[in-house]
This record gives sequence, structure tokens and C-alpha cells, in this order.
Amino acid sequence: MTDHTPKTLSEHPCFGGVQSFHEHASQEIGLPMRFSVYLPPQAANGPVPALLYLAGLTCNEETFAIKAGAQRMAASLGLALIAPDTSPRGPAAECVPGAKDDWDFGIGAGFYLDATREPWATHWRMESWIVHELLPLVAQHFAIDGQRIGIFGHSMGGHGALTLALRHPGRFKSLSAFAPICAPTQCPWGEKAFSGYLGAPGVDRAQWLAHDASALMQSQTVAPFPQGILIDQGLADKFLAEQLHPEAFESACFAAGQPLTLRRHAGYDHGYYFIQSFMADHIAHHAQSLHA
Amino acid sequence: MTDHTPKTLSEHPCFGGVQSFHEHASQEIGLPMRFSVYLPPQAANGPVPALLYLAGLTCNEETFAIKAGAQRMAASLGLALIAPDTSPRGPAAECVPGAKDDWDFGIGAGFYLDATREPWATHWRMESWIVHELLPLVAQHFAIDGQRIGIFGHSMGGHGALTLALRHPGRFKSLSAFAPICAPTQCPWGEKAFSGYLGAPGVDRAQWLAHDASALMQSQTVAPFPQGILIDQGLADKFLAEQLHPEAFESACFAAGQPLTLRRHAGYDHGYYFIQSFMADHIAHHAQSLHA
Repeated sequence: MTDHTPKTLSEHPCFGGVQSFHEHASQEIGLPMRFSVYLPPQAANGPVPALLYLAGLTCNEETFAIKAGAQRMAASLGLALIAPDTSPRGPAAECVPGAKDDWDFGIGAGFYLDATREPWATHWRMESWIVHELLPLVAQHFAIDGQRIGIFGHSMGGHGALTLALRHPGRFKSLSAFAPICAPTQCPWGEKAFSGYLGAPGVDRAQWLAHDASALMQSQTVAPFPQGILIDQGLADKFLAEQLHPEAFESACFAAGQPLTLRRHAGYDHGYYFIQSFMADHIAHHAQSLHA
Repeated sequence: MTDHTPKTLSEHPCFGGVQSFHEHASQEIGLPMRFSVYLPPQAANGPVPALLYLAGLTCNEETFAIKAGAQRMAASLGLALIAPDTSPRGPAAECVPGAKDDWDFGIGAGFYLDATREPWATHWRMESWIVHELLPLVAQHFAIDGQRIGIFGHSMGGHGALTLALRHPGRFKSLSAFAPICAPTQCPWGEKAFSGYLGAPGVDRAQWLAHDASALMQSQTVAPFPQGILIDQGLADKFLAEQLHPEAFESACFAAGQPLTLRRHAGYDHGYYFIQSFMADHIAHHAQSLHA
């Protein structure tokens, strides 16, 4: 029998809590998968709410922990931070034809969905891994309250945060994003990923729209996050015009009566110097709902 | 004629200021050298004081900007941040025999001194580069007040901060360090570096001691930093026992009447999760002197 207990790879005290890195034998993915956890000092007294952060293209489970500067506020407000890797990795994943050919598809580019098209359908099951396996796993093995989880992310991970939050009503108590891919069915990154993982759009357009945050929001009859959604977007982001389409999500929120704070910041780009600049606001946004 | 104006490699808005990366044709080193600058929002109104951060073994001019989480407090307190690379790099540096053989000597391991022994003496002139060329350069080309500079660093860079501050009286207005190499003449890293860059200790012991922070402090007749020096050290730091010797610097400060706050933190290790945890205290420590 395979041992499904996560193996701790490293632990580092940080702001009175502990930043740690782990690997477990994922049943959903069928391969070892990595993730990071930050536990704030308050976790020593019992389970704390947590934020799930989904990273962007080419990132891994370390990126957020190293670059986002989130631990300070998480320690201050008593929130755990969970950051999964962005795709299957390792020799078996690399053997999938095409897995290593592009930086925006395959390894490092799971797009937080379950692929339905071969050769991806076997291992590229990021949505099921995160929602059905990783979240229960961290609630079981860490001082994390699995009922109080917020979700946020960046770029591809912003797409992941918006879509997973809308596809799993009630699972996530709060939602925000940095420079998210808001309408993947209408941008080159999304068209490439969805074609590869889900198949041609003509075959099953509904399957595409089921993973498009703006389409999902458009179909809501009641605002799913009445306390509001927070999105930050840099106006000097080189991917903004072609890939991100925040205006599509903004229109969908307006149509659905969903409160949205979409802040457009002059000069800021797509990277972690942008993300860290507004991280404290995001963590405070989630804490309001998670500590309510 | 060579153009000595620094070339900007990239600029990223961050906490209302700008994190940027630069390269210039160094006369002291005789090669292109890289450094990073963070300018806080206050720099838009005129020159601001700055902190010079020296990084540890294997790091480069990006490490501090990415991992230390210092920009938030620097923006809040109106301080610039300057971070040089840790050695010469590039094809000409790599051609020096032995430059790439070890992670703790040669490239990425300049030890913040001017080598006197060949083949290092030509390019490995980190002390002269930083003190006589880089600091005037940034004061000329950026909104930085070259008369109000504090210095700090980590590990090898902590050694650099302590020794440059003591070797250049009055140049730096404030001083702190994270897990510094406090007595390089008494530890394997220092013995290896000093033997290579300065020659065997039997030949010129005085030359070694002139780059040993504890020996330099021991020789002071008046406390050089009457407002105090701040050092943080993790007690789970795997390099503490063999390489760092904070107790030697502590004794030297006591003998010299130099106020020292040496904080030993249970559980913390040698990395940037440790550094970021106490970064705000260091920046506040420097701001007290630099804004006085």
C-alpha cells in the first residue's frame, strides 16, 4: 500500500510560525505532488483558517513562499497559507509527449482543471487534486480548519482561484486575485491550454465555458461572494491587453450583482514586485471573511 | 572611452517606489558589474538616505530584492536599498583558474575585500568597487544622499558589512547584520577565502586580521557606532558553530565599549525566512541613525 501521509521536505521558522515544504503520493494525479504550508504562530493553539494560493505559469510550490512576502501578514492575522505546485512534475510527467516543449502548456501550466483529452487526462488533474485531495489532506495533517478556506492566485493562478471558487460553491469563503486570466476562452494562453487539455472548442464549447471565470460569473443568479471579490491589476502589465481581460469579468460581476473591487494600478507590471505591493490588502480582505 | 553610466536592465514599481537592476563598466573590477537599487516613493521629492545590503555566498544582486521583503519598510520609512553582486561574473571572471570550482570561493564569493594574490588581484576588488566606485555612482545617478548610508548584510555579507564599516570610519552611519561571519580568520570559510585572496596567514597575519570583524573591533579605542550595532542570529543555523562565531564579536564589542544588541533566536536557520522575519527591526534600526 502506498503511504499517503505527506513527507516533509523542509521546515523554516518564519515570523514566529513555520514555512514548510511537502510531497505526497497523490491518488488523483497518480504521481508525487508538492505543496508548501505556512502555519502562523496562532496555529500552536489550534486549527486556523487558511488561504489557498494558486501560482502562475512556470511557477512551483516555492514561488509564493519566496517572493510574495505574505507570511508577515498571515502571522499577524492568524492565517495559514497553502501553495500547491502548478502541474505534475518529475520523470513520469516529463514522459508525456509535449509536456516539456512549451513554457505555457504541460509542466508548470496545469491551468487548475482536470484534463479530459489524452495524453493529459491521466495525470493532469489539478482541480480534483487541489479540491478533493490536497485540502482534506492539509486539514488532516496540519493545524488548519478545513471549513474556513479562502482562495487567491496570480495570472494562471488567478484564473484558477476565480474558476475553482465559482465551480465549487461554498468550498471557499473568500476570493481575490492578482492579474488573473479572466476569460481564458478568449485569449491565446487559454485557447492553447483548453484545446490541449479539453479538446477543440467546436467539439464541446460548454466544457470550455465551464472553466472560464467570466462565463461562470455571467451564469450566476445570486452573487456568490456577497462580501465582495478583490482583484488588483497593473496597467503596465505586458500581458494585460492580450491575455487577461479583466473588463470581461468586471462586466460579468456587474450583470450578476456580484460586488467587485477591481483596482487598476498605473505603472505596475505582472511580477511579484507588483504582487507583494498589494499582498497585505488581499490577506486583510480574506481575514475579514475567514475570521467572521 | 568606456561609458561609465549604469545601464538599466529592468525597473519594477514596488510599494509606490521602484525596484531596479543595473550594470556598469566597473573601473575598479575591470569588468561589468551588476547591482540593484530600490527607491522609495519619497525619492521623488529629492535624495533619500540608503542602506547598502551585502549578500552571502552564492547570492547575486537579485537575492535581496526577491527574498528579503525589505521594500515595504523601506517605502514606509523613506530609505533606498542598494544591493551589489557578490563577485565579478561573466566570461572573463570565469576564465580565472578555479573561479567556478567551489561554491564558497571565486564567483559568488568575493568576501568584500581587495584580493592581493594572483590570479585574483586583477578583478576580485570588491571592497574598492563598493566603497570607492559604487557608492559615488549611485549617489550621482539616483535620488540617494551619499552622505547618509547605512550598511548591513547576511553571512559572508554580514562579514562584509562589519568589516567595511570598521575599515572606513565615518563612511557608514549605521550598522547591522544577519548571521554574520564574525571571525573569518578562525573559521573554514574565512581561512579558505583569505588564503586564496590574501595569501597564507604565516606570510602576513596582519593582512588577515585587517579583514576580521572581531579583530577590527578589538582594536578600537572608541566605540565606532555609539548608537549601537544590531545582529540577529538563528540558533538552529547549521553554520553557527563552525563558521560564524558571534561570541567573538560580542567579546570584542564588550572590550571596546561598543553597544551591541545580539539577539539569538531559537529555531531559526540561516536562510531568508529567518532574514525576512527580522528585516523590519533592522530597517528601523538604521532609520533611527539615518534620519537623525
